This record gives sequence, C-alpha cells and structure tokens, in this order.
Amino acid sequence: MEPKVKSAPMKVIIVGGVAGGASCAARLRRLDEKAEILMVERGPYVSYANCGLPYYIGGSIENESSLLVATEQMFRSVFAIDCRTNCEAIGISAEKKTIELKNHLTGEVTTEKYDKLVLSPGAAPIRPPLPGIDIPGIFSVRTVPDARNIREWLDRNMLNTGMNEYGGTNIIAKPKNAVVVGGGFIGLEMVENLVHRGLTVTLIEKLNQVMPPLDLEMARIAKQYMEKHGVKVELNDGVAGFRQAKEGTLEVLTESGKVYPAEVVILAIGVKPETALAKMAGLEIGKRGGIRVDEQMRTSHTDIFAVGDAVEVKDFVTGEWNLIPLAGPANRQGRIVADVLCGRNSRYRGTQGTSICKLFDAAIAQTGVSEKTLKGLGERDYEKIYTYPNSHAGYYPGAKMLIIKTLFRKSDGKLLGAQVLGEDGVPKRIDSFSMAIQMGCTIYDLEESELCYAPPYGSAKDPVNFAGMVAGNVLHGDMPICHWDSIENSFLLDVRNPQELEVESVKGSVNIPLPQLRSRLGELPRDREIHVFCRSAQRSYYATRILLQNGFKARNISGGMLSRSHSAVGPVAVASLMTTQDKK
Amino acid sequence: MEPKVKSAPMKVIIVGGVAGGASCAARLRRLDEKAEILMVERGPYVSYANCGLPYYIGGSIENESSLLVATEQMFRSVFAIDCRTNCEAIGISAEKKTIELKNHLTGEVTTEKYDKLVLSPGAAPIRPPLPGIDIPGIFSVRTVPDARNIREWLDRNMLNTGMNEYGGTNIIAKPKNAVVVGGGFIGLEMVENLVHRGLTVTLIEKLNQVMPPLDLEMARIAKQYMEKHGVKVELNDGVAGFRQAKEGTLEVLTESGKVYPAEVVILAIGVKPETALAKMAGLEIGKRGGIRVDEQMRTSHTDIFAVGDAVEVKDFVTGEWNLIPLAGPANRQGRIVADVLCGRNSRYRGTQGTSICKLFDAAIAQTGVSEKTLKGLGERDYEKIYTYPNSHAGYYPGAKMLIIKTLFRKSDGKLLGAQVLGEDGVPKRIDSFSMAIQMGCTIYDLEESELCYAPPYGSAKDPVNFAGMVAGNVLHGDMPICHWDSIENSFLLDVRNPQELEVESVKGSVNIPLPQLRSRLGELPRDREIHVFCRSAQRSYYATRILLQNGFKARNISGGMLSRSHSAVGPVAVASLMTTQDKK
Repeated sequence: MEPKVKSAPMKVIIVGGVAGGASCAARLRRLDEKAEILMVERGPYVSYANCGLPYYIGGSIENESSLLVATEQMFRSVFAIDCRTNCEAIGISAEKKTIELKNHLTGEVTTEKYDKLVLSPGAAPIRPPLPGIDIPGIFSVRTVPDARNIREWLDRNMLNTGMNEYGGTNIIAKPKNAVVVGGGFIGLEMVENLVHRGLTVTLIEKLNQVMPPLDLEMARIAKQYMEKHGVKVELNDGVAGFRQAKEGTLEVLTESGKVYPAEVVILAIGVKPETALAKMAGLEIGKRGGIRVDEQMRTSHTDIFAVGDAVEVKDFVTGEWNLIPLAGPANRQGRIVADVLCGRNSRYRGTQGTSICKLFDAAIAQTGVSEKTLKGLGERDYEKIYTYPNSHAGYYPGAKMLIIKTLFRKSDGKLLGAQVLGEDGVPKRIDSFSMAIQMGCTIYDLEESELCYAPPYGSAKDPVNFAGMVAGNVLHGDMPICHWDSIENSFLLDVRNPQELEVESVKGSVNIPLPQLRSRLGELPRDREIHVFCRSAQRSYYATRILLQNGFKARNISGGMLSRSHSAVGPVAVASLMTTQDKK
Repeated sequence: MEPKVKSAPMKVIIVGGVAGGASCAARLRRLDEKAEILMVERGPYVSYANCGLPYYIGGSIENESSLLVATEQMFRSVFAIDCRTNCEAIGISAEKKTIELKNHLTGEVTTEKYDKLVLSPGAAPIRPPLPGIDIPGIFSVRTVPDARNIREWLDRNMLNTGMNEYGGTNIIAKPKNAVVVGGGFIGLEMVENLVHRGLTVTLIEKLNQVMPPLDLEMARIAKQYMEKHGVKVELNDGVAGFRQAKEGTLEVLTESGKVYPAEVVILAIGVKPETALAKMAGLEIGKRGGIRVDEQMRTSHTDIFAVGDAVEVKDFVTGEWNLIPLAGPANRQGRIVADVLCGRNSRYRGTQGTSICKLFDAAIAQTGVSEKTLKGLGERDYEKIYTYPNSHAGYYPGAKMLIIKTLFRKSDGKLLGAQVLGEDGVPKRIDSFSMAIQMGCTIYDLEESELCYAPPYGSAKDPVNFAGMVAGNVLHGDMPICHWDSIENSFLLDVRNPQELEVESVKGSVNIPLPQLRSRLGELPRDREIHVFCRSAQRSYYATRILLQNGFKARNISGGMLSRSHSAVGPVAVASLMTTQDKK
C-alpha cells in the first residue's frame, strides 16, 4: 500500500499519552513531517513510567522526576506536536469526526476536528463501591499523583507528626500495618515495596492464588516466598468494606468476616479498560470489555484506532480475544498505528503475555499460555513438565534453583508456554522462551538450542535447552511421565538414597536406590504401572529407562519431590523452593 | 529408521569423557540398556568442569572437588558403563575394529574390539616449541591437574617460602607479575582470575584485537575495560621465547623485542583438535584440521563417530566448516551420536558460536556470524547497526549501558549475528538473539518481539526488540545509515545540545541542536549528503527524518558519538563505555 497523495496534511488526534499514545505520536511525526498531530493527556504528565510507581513509593526510585519519560515541552520542540496535558476528551462524534476537549486548568471546552483519531485511554484501577472505600488511606496506584499521595501519606505518617489533613477527628498513628488488596503484578510489587518501607503487610486475594497468569501450583511458590519475607497472604477471601477504627487506623473487612487493621490500604484488584469515549463513539466493544480492533489496531470505525490497555488483543498462542495490559505491546501497537496512518501494512501479531515481576530477591515470569487457560479452552493436546535446574553452573558461586514449568503440544511438540521462578537468571530464560514461542518453536528446536554458557551465567545444557531435552524425552516416548495430582493406586518407587528419605518420604512408596535397581528388579510388580520419583526427576528418569527396557510399565513423576512440594497433594510446608540451592 | 534387531548387544567404545563423550555414554545407556559400553579417559577424571578451571585458579571456586561433574564410580554404578580413567587409546585399526588401550597406572596395554567407536578426544592447548617453553612457571589450562599445578605454584610462591622444587638454583620470589599469552576466552578469564589473585597482569596477543569472535571495534571496548582494571594489553605482538631471569623470575620475550618479567605465564594461545587417533584410523580430516563428520557426527568411516572440540562443525549461519570449541555443542553432539547408534534420525544443525565470557564486572557475548567473517566470505548483502540501550529501565537503580552490534541481511532482513557487551543484562540479550538466529528470525520479527519487562529487568522496548526496530527503520528505508569508518567529505551535522559539545566534538561538524533544526534548515546544503549524529543516534534519527522529508540527502551515523568512541576513526581514549551509565 502506497501512502495516499493528499492535498492537505492529515490531522491526527491522539487521546492519552503514556505508552501507546506517546509512541504513536512520536513515530507518526517521524514518518510524516507534515501531519498535524494533537495529543491530549488528562493527567499532568504526557509520558511517565507507570511501571515504576511502586518503586517510587517504596523508595528504590528516589525522585519523582525520574519517572517522567518525556515532557510536553519535548513533544512540542522535538516532535512539533501540539501536546496538551490536563486536557481530557469528554465528547466525541464519529460522524462529524470531532472531539470535545476540556482543559482542566481553565475549564474551557473546545471542539477539534480530526481526520484520524487514536484512542489510548488506558485502563483504570477497579475501585468497587464498597462501604468505606473513600476513607482516607485507601489508594490505587495508577498515576504519578497517586504515587505521590501514597508516598506523602507514608512519609507523614511514618514520622508520626500527628498531623492529619484527611480524616478530621482521628489521630494518625505511626503506620505499622498495610493491607494490599489483590495479588496481581501491582499487588505483589506493592507488597514488596511496603515491606521495604518497614510496614507489616497483609495481602488479601479473592482467588485461590496470587499472580493470576501463573498456574496454581506455581503461584503457591510465590505465596510461600512472600510468607518467608513476613507477608501474611490470605487467599479465597474478598474485601467486603472498610471502616475507620480508633487511633487513626482503618479496618479492612473481608467477605469471610475477618478484620484486618491497617494504616494504609492499596487497592490492586485489577484494571478495567477505559471505554467511555469508545462507547460514546459507538465503537464495538469485545466480550472482555475492551475496545475491539483489527490487526491494524483499527476499531469498528474506519477512522478511529485504539491501542494499549483499553483494547482487546488476540492471544498469540490461542487466538482468543483477551485483555492483557502490558507496556511492551502498548508501545508496539502505537508504532503500528503510526505506520498504518501513513499507509503502511504493519500488523499486530497478538500478545504472548510475556511478563515478569520482581518479588524481593526473586523474579516471577511467564510467557505464552498457562495450563489453566488450556483447560479453560477444553484443550487436551498438551503436556507439561517441571524442571528445577541451577541458574548457572552449580560449581560456580551464587547458583540458585530455577523452577520451570514448560507447556507444549503433544501432537507436534509446539512450545505453548513457560513459567519461570527463581532468585537468579529468570529474565534470561523467560526471554529465550518468549522468542521461541514467537518463532513457533517446538520442543525439538529447544533441544537443539545453543544458548550462552560460561560458569557465571549458565550451563552447557542451559535450563531452556534442558527443558527442551526433557520434553523431547517425553514426546520421543523415552520417558512416559505423570504428575502427583493424577496418581492413583500406582506402585510408587522412590529411587533416592536412604538418607534423603529421612528428610522427607512419601507414604506407601518403596525405596530402591538407583544404583541398586538393576539387581533388585525382582522386587517390582510386572502387572502394575510403576511411578518413579527422586528429588528432581533426573535419577528417576534413568530408573524409568531401566524399567521400561526390562519390560515394566513405568512413568517418571515430573519434577519428583520438588514438584510434590508445591503440588496439590504435596506438603506445601516444604521450605521455600526459591531459597534452596540445588545440589546434585 | 528403526533400530536393527541384533543377536548380540552392540559394543561401543568411547574415547574421552568430559563433555561430549560422557554425554554420549550416559544417553546411550538410557536408550539401550543392553549395549556394552566402554568409556576411557586418559586423565584421572572422567567428567569435570573444564570451563570452571580459571575460577578454581582464581579462587572463586574454592574446592577442587566442585569441579568433578561425575565420577568413574557413578558411571559404573548408575549407568553400568565400564569406565576407565588413566586409560589412553594409543592405537586403532578401523579395519579390524579394534583399539589399543594403555593403562597409565599399570603400563598394561590391551586390545579391545568395538562395534562402534566414538572419538571425543577434545582439543589440546597449543604449546609452540619456543625457546624456554619448559621453564617452570609456564602453564596451560586444560585439565584439573593443570589448574591444581597453577594454583599450587601461586600459593607457594605468593607465600614466598623460598621453597623451590622446579628450577634448581633460582630463588622464587613472591610473584608480582603474570603474563597471559593469548586474548581468547581462556586468556581473558585467566586475566581476570590472576588480577583477582593480586597479580599485575600483562596480556600479550599476536592479533590486533582480543576475543577473536568479536569484531575489532567491539573488541576495543574489552581492551579498554581490561586496562581500566589495571591490565596491560599488548596487541600485535607474538611471544618469541622465554628465559629464566635472576631472582627466580621468568622473562617473556616478544617478536617485537620486548621483555616482560613474570613469575607466572599462562599460555592461552588457542587449542588444536586432537586428531592423532583419527589420523591413525585413516579418517578424513577437514581443512581446518578437525575430524570431518556428517550431520549425524559420523566420520568418513561408517562405524566411527566423533564429537566435541576435535571435530569441524558447520557454521549455522554461513554453512562453512569451522572449529568452534564449545561445551554446549559438545554435549548435544554426544547426545546425537547416542541417538544415531540406537537407530534414530537425530541430526546436528551446526554451531552458532553462541558464547559469553565474564570480564571483571562485565560480560562479553556473541552469537551467529561476525562482520569480519562476512567480509572474509566476500559477503556484501548485510548491514550492521550499533545500539546503546540501558540494561533496564533507566529510572530504576542499577541500569547500565549495553553495547550491541547487530548484523542482518539487507535483502531479506534475516538476523545474522549479534555482539553484546555490558555490565548488566548481557546473558538475557545474547540468548534472545541466539534463539532468534536459531529460528531464522528476521529483524522484522525482532521488531515485534515481546520480551519481559519490569523496571528491574528491562524496558518496554527491550534492547533486543529495540535493535529490531532500529534495523527495521534501516531496511524500511526510513533511516539510511552510515558508519564512522566510511565517511568521506560528507557534511557532518551534530544535533546535540551545545553543552554536550563541550565534552567532545567532531572537527568540521556543524552543530544545530535538534529542537532548532526545523527552523534552521536553510543553513544546510542541498547538494551534499548530510551525515547526522548525536550521542547515541536517537536524536539524529529524528533529525534524519526531518531532513529526508524536507528533500535533503541524509544519513544517520549508526550509534553516534558512542560508536565513534570505539571506531577506527574515533578517539579511543573516551572513557570506557562499559562504566558510563546511560543518561537520556
């Protein structure tokens, strides 16, 4: 498609800056020096690092100015863009191609005409109309002013000056307790940062797990890890309301009837696409509640585009429409709209959901599809493996155990998703998996991957490579596997050494240490399936091979005792996986 | 291919353990419980972490036992493999399918018959027959005993006990100076580890750069970085010989006539495939001097396979035969041979050359092909870009600048290679590039990559993603580029702010700060090509877009002043790139 020859320059209005809108505006100017570009942002900052807000609150980021990515002035001077902050789009007519803008500083309302409109309104924190929700001390974390308010609240109240501009009669005590409502990305980041500020933190989550993109058994590790850092984690309980308590303390009331005192409450329940303008313009809204767009980020109206957290995206792996609010995709979508506005054929490929969250000394990351998503779609053509490799060569100091769940299609070996947790080397591995999924990698490709290795950074068989090898063993038929949650009436064979059983053993299992297996095959049943395990499923893989080649029916229990420790059947009490150095 | 049905179990002899041989042996046993497997290793350890040796010498790895990956006893008990250490293959008959083994402990020589033979002899450090090469204190680094000898030498001489078992009349002084000969992986690792031991280190390299897999301009950064850590780096000078000096000091004599005193010398000139047995067996040897094998690691003799550092591999990108001694490929090759011996159709895909080297606080990494390799092949269908992104969001503490060179094909955008240096986040990026190259990624794919982002780990546009975007701008025709070493008589436009020029400016360039450019276009020539630069090539990209759309001929100088600092024309004296925090 060639750019159309136009007599007058195209006028583009972009509603909302930050990631998607600002990326779009800057690229549009680069591609089209003549376009008339107006970008409006409701808030005081046109482009700021919203992902940094929790760290500004926690103090790792000292200065608010660090959060400002690009200023209004820069958009004007460098990009010749009419950039207006404190300016909100309050009305729209798709027919007339006009938009009403309100200047929040002056109150003035003007109407602007556009040729093309780009909506980048983002998503708003969910703030349910619960009793007491407006009591001072209850915050959401979306904007720089939000973060500033929280930080000021903490600073003032941590100093215990007795000052109180918020509640009237209550006396603000030195805050000791914080409640974070919601265990997603922002919730977990706020948990860490509030602990960092010296608060005692309780996390309340309505679901049965934290970090919803993870599968349940992986999220258990994150929960344990938070608990190890002194955080109280309450699952399966929603917030029913709030009330002002004596001594300047709030109380958080839960649906199960519990009461948690807190001097500060962070609402991190989730976000909801901002679709008011889109609805006003009569644009199609998807079932998930986001603006529906095509591959070129065009809404149901040909001259209106939408990007970022407000839109529904196609899941890269499943092709299902979904809401996946992430900064990287928002930026790329903004670029794509600029391309399309200039007549180019750029297309958005869908969102993989690659994401990572720092949690104290650990990182939690995922890419692609989770098992629960596959189950939700009724998918059965998949298998999963759990591996627990060292983050780098075990003989070099500082190696930590990685916890990796890899999902792949049984029929063709295609890599579907990966979840990685650990205290070292997580970003490296999730990005290898991300790139692999993007490129349609199979586990057979992963088996052959050549990833970097030197003792401080990896292993000759890198954890990603190793996951491919283990998955390959499954699909090649060399290693039938099973999982702790699907074992029934099988013969359980533990091939660890006796001293390992002293620490923890599995009731009803029979112990034959691997080196003795060949000489003790007579002790094993030939009429039952034998499920073999060890600590991490490596020795039990060897044992499974011996058994299979000697005519037994055998399966290796994926991940062995390490998987058991965070499985549905396991004693979750096993010490946090993320602080156990892997020993061979 | 189905496994052949055999009456007697297959007998496989594996010569050499460590990476390739030991991997092959273990997998062969897993796949074939009945095979008769004999593995012989000339040295005392069948499988050890040779990549860890420099760190054992330096003391980061305290105990020698940490280096032992698997013992002879483990191969016997777990894998039922006849494993013999201190046992060298000294003769071979490919016709009779026999091999002669010498037990170095007893001196006994036996002859063993094989059905299949796997050669995994590795590569030997080059030890040229220079005058004085046998003077005590000159070491190579290949085996655990080598490392132990160096460590003992340093320990004894650092303590300055006056003991001397080596030279007779000389008196060993407390070592102060070390000379490392050769600036490849082992050379650089030894440099760091000897500095760590408190020695003053001189690195002597015959080539015009350290770290041969890097291109020259990237290697300059590594050189500067070592110098910043007190290392003296002498390029373009070979070692001519050694002599015993007074006071127990060696002298290293170079071809240019220089003399370097040293109490310890490490030879890290490179390695040479061990092909004595292969030649004895009449196997084909490639032009590079390695054993020639096919995709199934089969030598020119149908019953003899070879793996690891002794074989030539096909370069994954160029398809050329090459010697690329790396642990990961050796391990995978061992697995492939085991597969093939069991009748499977596994194939080795070639070696990408993905590698990484720790250098003090930094890492140096590369994958795929270098520019000099492309030039050596006469390839002209490629372009390169230099980018200098932050390792993670600049507003989060600890961000460091990454230095990235990306090579791609002009005609189809295919990613060909990448070189990454920096003090943070290097392994993550090189592995994304590695996976991308493996999967045949184009820079258009990289533009769309969804890599993990949270402020401590990345950016919304990850450095790898960003490299794709910049390369995309080049190939889409939006940003014609040029490089400092190919600029002649062009009009040089510097779009930085005046205060930046005070630090360093380019003679003959004209300064128009970016924000003023649109209003000062009249000052620029329309008949000459304008080459634009700024600090990192971002603002100059914006400027290039403005110029092009206003009818000027313009090119962006890739990487701007940052590239200039390590280019052929640049003042290399600019402070080491790897310690400059990137500021926008």
